[in-house]
Amino acid sequence: MTTVNHDYSQLTIRPISHDLKKQAQHKIDFKTKPLGSLGILEDLAVTMSCIQGTLNPTLLKKSLFTFAADHGIAEEGVSAFPQEVTQQMVLNFLNGGAAINVLSEHNGIDLSIVEVGVNNFSFDHPKLLSHHIADGTKNFSKECAMTPDEAKAALQVGIDVFNSQYEIEPIEILGLGEMGIANTTSATAIISTITQKAVNKCTGKGTGIDDSSLAHKVSVIEKALALHSPNGQDAIDVLSKVGGFEIAAMAGAALAAASKGCAVVLDGLISTAAGLIAHTINPTVAEYYIAGHKSVEQGHIYALQHIGIKPVLDLNFRLGEGTGAALAIDLVDAACAIMRNMASFEDAGVSNS
Amino acid sequence: MTTVNHDYSQLTIRPISHDLKKQAQHKIDFKTKPLGSLGILEDLAVTMSCIQGTLNPTLLKKSLFTFAADHGIAEEGVSAFPQEVTQQMVLNFLNGGAAINVLSEHNGIDLSIVEVGVNNFSFDHPKLLSHHIADGTKNFSKECAMTPDEAKAALQVGIDVFNSQYEIEPIEILGLGEMGIANTTSATAIISTITQKAVNKCTGKGTGIDDSSLAHKVSVIEKALALHSPNGQDAIDVLSKVGGFEIAAMAGAALAAASKGCAVVLDGLISTAAGLIAHTINPTVAEYYIAGHKSVEQGHIYALQHIGIKPVLDLNFRLGEGTGAALAIDLVDAACAIMRNMASFEDAGVSNS
Repeated sequence: MTTVNHDYSQLTIRPISHDLKKQAQHKIDFKTKPLGSLGILEDLAVTMSCIQGTLNPTLLKKSLFTFAADHGIAEEGVSAFPQEVTQQMVLNFLNGGAAINVLSEHNGIDLSIVEVGVNNFSFDHPKLLSHHIADGTKNFSKECAMTPDEAKAALQVGIDVFNSQYEIEPIEILGLGEMGIANTTSATAIISTITQKAVNKCTGKGTGIDDSSLAHKVSVIEKALALHSPNGQDAIDVLSKVGGFEIAAMAGAALAAASKGCAVVLDGLISTAAGLIAHTINPTVAEYYIAGHKSVEQGHIYALQHIGIKPVLDLNFRLGEGTGAALAIDLVDAACAIMRNMASFEDAGVSNS
Repeated sequence: MTTVNHDYSQLTIRPISHDLKKQAQHKIDFKTKPLGSLGILEDLAVTMSCIQGTLNPTLLKKSLFTFAADHGIAEEGVSAFPQEVTQQMVLNFLNGGAAINVLSEHNGIDLSIVEVGVNNFSFDHPKLLSHHIADGTKNFSKECAMTPDEAKAALQVGIDVFNSQYEIEPIEILGLGEMGIANTTSATAIISTITQKAVNKCTGKGTGIDDSSLAHKVSVIEKALALHSPNGQDAIDVLSKVGGFEIAAMAGAALAAASKGCAVVLDGLISTAAGLIAHTINPTVAEYYIAGHKSVEQGHIYALQHIGIKPVLDLNFRLGEGTGAALAIDLVDAACAIMRNMASFEDAGVSNS
């Protein structure tokens, strides 16, 4: 199987500058601290310098999109929660009561809730961005999750939401989160397909199923992949066979953000599955990725390895919504402040050795 | 050897409430998220509830003290940096150019710089708190680092600085940081003494010495402990034989903070050595401790295990100053916000299973 290129040519992504990387590393190395002693914060400072093309990176506008959609695969009993929780949680997001609301507000992140395929969703709210494609995906253990056209439409939702917000005010960092009961099943199928790791190695307990449900979840995914044989080098094929609307939308948002020079902070398993989809469409997008945190889901680390990035935080999170990304964004902000505001040995008259 | 009680009876520390712990755990368990899915943030929310004695913990006033002092043991060539860097870095702190300045400002933390024993320090600055005890400690490979009276005076500096600031405005969380060339050598001697772990297992490369210097550092500490035989159950004996003025002051600040119901965020190796000293004086202090981060120094994890706490962050830091504590304080702040502001399943009408 070979890579299939779909036309996202309007989303040209500029590779980051390797010359600037050397300069950024030099700048951070001569700050008043032992070499490398700020660990991951130094890596983030260099990454942000390269992404923004400046030795004085800033995060003036921080955004996070939480995309929500339902999954037909929930019928197979793969989640600890009933499917109506997707809709209930969207209302909770809109009312400001969820973890992602609290953490976004804590870190000065502008949060958008995007409904892209929640079952029977008719709720209207001034804060809701409605881009409904269908009432959830189909049950991919029996048929394709969506049509290729729906997959493209869902990707386009992410692109459009990013671009319309970016037009109002340029976004410097974008966190990607999601809500969708049973979406770890879809994400795991995507990750296993693209990374070619065995399903049983990639599958975790999601929001909290027990051991026998875990074995069932593995079996559901294995059978679905045998049924559909998705082509891991064709993002639209993977999405249409085993994907989710919110996953496609996150991938679109990642591509749009990178094409505008905006850093993309991935969250956990599902967000990173979307990161893999975008990476399949255009590998250069990964130069703009920051892995927000290490999920407790097994497949997450394989997805990150495939992309070639390491997680910033390890807080034992397994919630999604963008919660890990929201906390990581603040560390990125701190890293930018270090790069801009910390004195060099020379500035401060401190002996370097 | 038995525990030696010095008279710090004015610093009565109230044990935290175990009844409240159950209530706090119940409150966090019924927030709109899968059980335990916010990992470490949930633990911090429960800890802060217990420390503050409320199910709605706040962090209205966040402070961090960076204590600075010199160490006679630097004569033995145990550090990668010359001794004058202590003084130069204090000036850098006062001018706002160090990592701890940038990170404290980023997280809204009030930073105080306390000079407690820097060599020949005559610099006057409106932001400097001067509590000079001596021009550095003595070289403890040859003689005691300080007298018992100096150890008590340095502890009292920490107590006084905390109490005087607390009187102006109650502090809800205190980070403890330090600066002092060669102070990983003193901290490692303290940790090895109190935890009874072998010196070679506790000793790391500090700010960046090479392998042969590391072997030398181990040998210097081993010989010093053989010379002095400090009593690991007598904090003043340990401090006077192998301690540092800034370490004693941090221990005093920890005791004073806990006695006022203020959470104490430890930083890396040296801050945690101070935490061990305070714990030796009054073990109840540890109920107020939060381990800010995991240092790359080997002795750090033994010190944390001895106290019985786990680090919040693991960012590969090895800087000190309070930098890991400054970042952890913001996570504690986020955890308090989760506890106060996130909706319960019942509030939000979300199905719980």
